[in-house]
Amino acid sequence: MLFHVRMDVAIPPGLDVTDRVAAEKARALELQRAGVWVHLWRIVGRYSNFSVFDVATNDELHDILSTLPLYPFMKIEVTPLATHPSDLAAQ
Amino acid sequence: MLFHVRMDVAIPPGLDVTDRVAAEKARALELQRAGVWVHLWRIVGRYSNFSVFDVATNDELHDILSTLPLYPFMKIEVTPLATHPSDLAAQ
Amino acid sequence: MLFHVRMDVAIPPGLDVTDRVAAEKARALELQRAGVWVHLWRIVGRYSNFSVFDVATNDELHDILSTLPLYPFMKIEVTPLATHPSDLAAQ
Amino acid sequence: MLFHVRMDVAIPPGLDVTDRVAAEKARALELQRAGVWVHLWRIVGRYSNFSVFDVATNDELHDILSTLPLYPFMKIEVTPLATHPSDLAAQ
Amino acid sequence: MLFHVRMDVAIPPGLDVTDRVAAEKARALELQRAGVWVHLWRIVGRYSNFSVFDVATNDELHDILSTLPLYPFMKIEVTPLATHPSDLAAQ
Amino acid sequence: MLFHVRMDVAIPPGLDVTDRVAAEKARALELQRAGVWVHLWRIVGRYSNFSVFDVATNDELHDILSTLPLYPFMKIEVTPLATHPSDLAAQ
Amino acid sequence: MLFHVRMDVAIPPGLDVTDRVAAEKARALELQRAGVWVHLWRIVGRYSNFSVFDVATNDELHDILSTLPLYPFMKIEVTPLATHPSDLAAQ
Amino acid sequence: MLFHVRMDVAIPPGLDVTDRVAAEKARALELQRAGVWVHLWRIVGRYSNFSVFDVATNDELHDILSTLPLYPFMKIEVTPLATHPSDLAAQ
Amino acid sequence: MLFHVRMDVAIPPGLDVTDRVAAEKARALELQRAGVWVHLWRIVGRYSNFSVFDVATNDELHDILSTLPLYPFMKIEVTPLATHPSDLAAQ
Amino acid sequence: MLFHVRMDVAIPPGLDVTDRVAAEKARALELQRAGVWVHLWRIVGRYSNFSVFDVATNDELHDILSTLPLYPFMKIEVTPLATHPSDLAAQ
Repeated sequence: MLFHVRMDVAIPPGLDVTDRVAAEKARALELQRAGVWVHLWRIVGRYSNFSVFDVATNDELHDILSTLPLYPFMKIEVTPLATHPSDLAAQ
Repeated sequence: MLFHVRMDVAIPPGLDVTDRVAAEKARALELQRAGVWVHLWRIVGRYSNFSVFDVATNDELHDILSTLPLYPFMKIEVTPLATHPSDLAAQ
Repeated sequence: MLFHVRMDVAIPPGLDVTDRVAAEKARALELQRAGVWVHLWRIVGRYSNFSVFDVATNDELHDILSTLPLYPFMKIEVTPLATHPSDLAAQ
Repeated sequence: MLFHVRMDVAIPPGLDVTDRVAAEKARALELQRAGVWVHLWRIVGRYSNFSVFDVATNDELHDILSTLPLYPFMKIEVTPLATHPSDLAAQ
Repeated sequence: MLFHVRMDVAIPPGLDVTDRVAAEKARALELQRAGVWVHLWRIVGRYSNFSVFDVATNDELHDILSTLPLYPFMKIEVTPLATHPSDLAAQ
Repeated sequence: MLFHVRMDVAIPPGLDVTDRVAAEKARALELQRAGVWVHLWRIVGRYSNFSVFDVATNDELHDILSTLPLYPFMKIEVTPLATHPSDLAAQ
Repeated sequence: MLFHVRMDVAIPPGLDVTDRVAAEKARALELQRAGVWVHLWRIVGRYSNFSVFDVATNDELHDILSTLPLYPFMKIEVTPLATHPSDLAAQ
Repeated sequence: MLFHVRMDVAIPPGLDVTDRVAAEKARALELQRAGVWVHLWRIVGRYSNFSVFDVATNDELHDILSTLPLYPFMKIEVTPLATHPSDLAAQ
Repeated sequence: MLFHVRMDVAIPPGLDVTDRVAAEKARALELQRAGVWVHLWRIVGRYSNFSVFDVATNDELHDILSTLPLYPFMKIEVTPLATHPSDLAAQ
Repeated sequence: MLFHVRMDVAIPPGLDVTDRVAAEKARALELQRAGVWVHLWRIVGRYSNFSVFDVATNDELHDILSTLPLYPFMKIEVTPLATHPSDLAAQ
């Protein structure tokens, strides 16, 4: 099941998050290899991304998002996705 | 080059757009086959979609969007995407 | 899986929707009996409701919502819900 | 009488609220056992919840909410609920 | 129990609501005499009012509001009120 | 002359305002006794109130509001009120 | 007493308001001559104005605004003004 | 003097504006040749543009904008521009 | 040339700006005497003002605003004004 | 390919960014000389600018923006631009 997720990151001025950023990247790569984090794009001009997650349940998605190393500094918007009637793959 | 596009469709009450909807679907399938309209998801609960387009220029994207049969009834938001540093494919 | 849904209904002035309203009620009762539409509350002062749906997938939810008789006159906001760590039932 | 409540929690960076969080959970469980806090769901991707309270008066609700341990860090939106004409239980 | 209510009225151009306006006034006077509609003020420069209602339950308030003759043309915002700790009458 | 005032109080984390809160209450009681602060209600779930002031001029209202002890921590919205044509007292 | 007023005019497409516009202008000139409508500026690029009215009471202002010929097509925002401590005239 | 202008065009459904669109284009070309309308870009995905005008006074700009053939169907936002300290031409 | 300016001042808690406030007042008086800052009104209930400036160019206005002593703590909105067709002085 | 960019700069109170500002200016001049940063205007009354960039790809634009010395203190909005049908240069 697919979910569209927008993440806007805002780090308080002066806070060193180097370790967290590295941990975030490692976790993101891990989830992409697992086929859970299926799309991850940078929004031009912002410390933000659009992502798509493929998970079995809402709870699974919340567990993933809320344990991301940068979660405390993120504003997250989750939008559930359904199959579009004009989706080529769905014809 | 990837662009994230949100389309919200609002048809004026009483207007018959059956033909336009069919033409929209045909055009969407055509663009997906051409590898231009690379993702198309329905936003649950809305006559809206999140899409991703792969185009060479801004002009090409505008020509595509502004000639969609349902374009006159769409509110469209375009966000340019860049490669995310944690994108598995970009490692 | 639970989804929180807000529905705001706006009927164009002068349009007779008596039949649709009756069909909407019948459908709502049917979905409640089926255990899908698990909560349905009226927002005081508005032609709106807060609801909770229990469905297996996003697609199922979209099919339900988009085929509601009053769907063309609804603004719908869907929020996926997860288990709260302080939920008594989850202890 | 039912009230729909949305709580968005924002803890200032660096502030240790471990005790408050524990106290919040204990209080939430207590209120759920008392049948006052009748629904409590986590909003996926956010330190937020949708809740439903069953109280006798507005004052009772405000006393409950304003004495929650995490209240100083909460943005709260309260919406009074009425019986929906299509509520199965109300037929 | 007190509820603060804001009503913004918007009549579609060309629609004659003379009768409804008269019926609205009669109903408002009736509810004020009954001690239910306890405050009713005109917002300067707008076809809007701030009101305060004294009712026993949410359902009672919704029944009153949703049966107002001008209800179909109103945007209504309801805010439950509690006793303020500095309210002179509450000392 | 009546003015509707909404006050939202936000105290910076860690700042001790006990004295100010006490002074605010004393001032509020004083103004109520003087018939200036004619209504004061707590908005359920928020450190906010709806109030109504009866003053002779805009300047008088601004002097009162801007000298409230908690003024530096308040977001204030002032709406001038006029007599409503359906106000019972105005018939 | 001074009030800042913003008026945004929106005429429904196809409606002939020539007479109303003429009546509006006559009324505006009349009120300016009476020293009530003390400032009237066009907002560049919009069918809108910023104005300042000098009236004795809120009711007087509402009567003036609500009887303007174009009132039914106006969105109006009223902001009460007080003397600014740095106002040269107030030194 | 430079002004940044955003124009969003919304044509009521079913209204034929072919002549107006042609007149708008002719006028735009005329103003560009006159060095007044100095930049005109299409916002991708919208019937909107960002423009920059070079005019002597606010009044001149309002006269130009408010006499554009499509003006009745435009939402316009005007932002005055000043020389940026890092503008190469201003060094 | 007239510009409408709204200034909202927000001083970070605990910061002593007494000198700046005095300097701001002196500068405001100076500009008023010079006929540049032609109107300055306090918005009731807020540390904000509506002002009107009479300047020759946008650059002049920006230089004035951006060198105000309290500028670093101000949110400023500038709206260019044109002569209103119903302005008595313009007849 | 042209992109419209709005940058709003907000420096935390008390933070000395003199070096960054100088570095930002140097970088801006460099990019203007390179024909990449093609327009740069100050928004009157704000620490903000409207700019237009001419780049080959989204990634190039993001690299430029995200490495600007003041980037950590900027809110940036990017809007892709297309050729306007009434653009004189495009006739």
